Amino acid sequence: MPGMKVAELGEFGLIGRLAAMVSRGRARRPDAPDPLIIGMGDDAAAWHGDSSVQLATVDSLVQDIHFSLASTSWEELGWKSLAVNLSDIAAMGGLPRYALVSLGLPGDTEVDDITAFYHGMIDLAREYDVRIIGGDTVSAPLVIINITVLGSSGSEAGQILTRSAARPKDVVAVTGSLGAAAAGVEMFAGGLTFEPGAAAILREACNRPRPRVAEGKLLAGQGVRAAIDISDGLVADLDHVCTGSGVGARVNVDLVPVTPAVRECFGDRALELALTGGEDYELLFTATAEQTDRVREATPVPVTVIGEITAEGTGAISLVDSRGNPVRFSGMGWDHFRVSRSQT
Amino acid sequence: MPGMKVAELGEFGLIGRLAAMVSRGRARRPDAPDPLIIGMGDDAAAWHGDSSVQLATVDSLVQDIHFSLASTSWEELGWKSLAVNLSDIAAMGGLPRYALVSLGLPGDTEVDDITAFYHGMIDLAREYDVRIIGGDTVSAPLVIINITVLGSSGSEAGQILTRSAARPKDVVAVTGSLGAAAAGVEMFAGGLTFEPGAAAILREACNRPRPRVAEGKLLAGQGVRAAIDISDGLVADLDHVCTGSGVGARVNVDLVPVTPAVRECFGDRALELALTGGEDYELLFTATAEQTDRVREATPVPVTVIGEITAEGTGAISLVDSRGNPVRFSGMGWDHFRVSRSQT
Repeated sequence: MPGMKVAELGEFGLIGRLAAMVSRGRARRPDAPDPLIIGMGDDAAAWHGDSSVQLATVDSLVQDIHFSLASTSWEELGWKSLAVNLSDIAAMGGLPRYALVSLGLPGDTEVDDITAFYHGMIDLAREYDVRIIGGDTVSAPLVIINITVLGSSGSEAGQILTRSAARPKDVVAVTGSLGAAAAGVEMFAGGLTFEPGAAAILREACNRPRPRVAEGKLLAGQGVRAAIDISDGLVADLDHVCTGSGVGARVNVDLVPVTPAVRECFGDRALELALTGGEDYELLFTATAEQTDRVREATPVPVTVIGEITAEGTGAISLVDSRGNPVRFSGMGWDHFRVSRSQT
Repeated sequence: MPGMKVAELGEFGLIGRLAAMVSRGRARRPDAPDPLIIGMGDDAAAWHGDSSVQLATVDSLVQDIHFSLASTSWEELGWKSLAVNLSDIAAMGGLPRYALVSLGLPGDTEVDDITAFYHGMIDLAREYDVRIIGGDTVSAPLVIINITVLGSSGSEAGQILTRSAARPKDVVAVTGSLGAAAAGVEMFAGGLTFEPGAAAILREACNRPRPRVAEGKLLAGQGVRAAIDISDGLVADLDHVCTGSGVGARVNVDLVPVTPAVRECFGDRALELALTGGEDYELLFTATAEQTDRVREATPVPVTVIGEITAEGTGAISLVDSRGNPVRFSGMGWDHFRVSRSQT
């Protein structure tokens, strides 16, 4: 496609194209069993290790695009950079085990800043029993963070959570509550002042997300098969699941759990932030009502049913209120090349 | 260390500090066996999988620091970006198996350029039976490439090649010949014109290196335990091995195999390019003379003994000519934060 720009195709379009190229281009071994379970396009890659399923994921963060050092400390940045990867492993139902950390840094970066960055990562790594096992550090004109996390499912191959396993009549559920991270982004971007307790909640959600590793493992253990972490936004990530599974979904927006501090600070806009803001790193999953009940009983984290999977056209998501009236918003999530909202 | 800049500490100093922090910071499980074999600081990380050793490595390339689109096509860039990672797995004696590719791209990047980049990677991946299984693609103000490669040793834990296993009286040997990649860099940087056959060799060495995977596996199988790939330069990489092993080395520079095209194009400077130029991605290893003979007999690739490991002070490397006279050069390799030569 001569002349087409990456920005025109968009991130997801580009990834889809590249995944298809990779699939077409690989060496075929028709006689050998295929150890690969999930390649490009899901939260993490998964393959058969010798006797357990191994998982790998990578995320890139670029200064002034994915983070600003004006609103994030280096220590928070270290925490968050690793947390977003653990969240991808959690969204597969796996246990994160190893991390490779690659940094691009301007030569005049303070060493203390980088050690603070590592302290943030190490705090999270210790808490989640993850080991940083390598990486690369290079010169760059701006700060670039690239972290790969490897994990394992700790269970049979069938027990991983994918974007492609949602089935009609499944309920759609989410862990925790939504909107605080996006609210934090707006707070920093707009220089907004809120009551200190609420502001601290937004800052924490934005800069120190807590990946739902235990909950992902619980989902997998209870027989749930479809999940994603909410990084692009509830609607956008539900769309990834619906598109991946060839199904539609209907969400009752009045059921969506909005973080109370977001309602306090943003009033009428709170629901929009909860539906379209990304980076909350809660888990969205689809399952039978019985599975969902079992999950709810087994964890202290709130688990809320917000809708159901339908057999309608692939990726068709309808948002309705409790009376069944349709709801519309302009921004539907965050495509890294098609930015339609303020960025962290 | 308040006020110290990354550039002052240098890449290797920084990595050493961060590795120590990670080691100190990890959760201690005194009763559990440690599955980690090699963490930060070697060519790749290695750990016990369930019944084989898994390997992981990552490399970052930043536009106008590690590559220039003026002297490298996108397809060559794809090849090389993946090749440098396969070379790290080769330097551990392992077989590369999976790659995660993370790209930071300006929004106005041509999609065709990115597909060309992927074609380059896919060509190499097919040849080496590696599968690209995931990654991340984000917006960035310049091109940033970050590739993680996972592999396995295909043999017992003891059969990996590390930087820390060189022993006094080992011979020091290298595969292939050296200097062509650095000569290519100088050719591009200086706009130099050479005889077309020689120029093609330099360009190929610079942009389409061939990782020595089969040779690394052969070394491991023959009982060799110490190796590194020559990415920073022969002397600098030998220094990594000597420092890692607590030994010294003596190299007879007259034995160093210099690529003939480099002699043709650069005359008297050829030896310096072979000793201090990086990115040839040949393997440097230390072993007994008998092991080295067995390796030489088992591969069509030239294997040349260039010196020996000594019990002298850690990291002390003496360069001598065939008469035993000391040889000195100014540039001793490429530290990514302390750049002392033209860059690709």
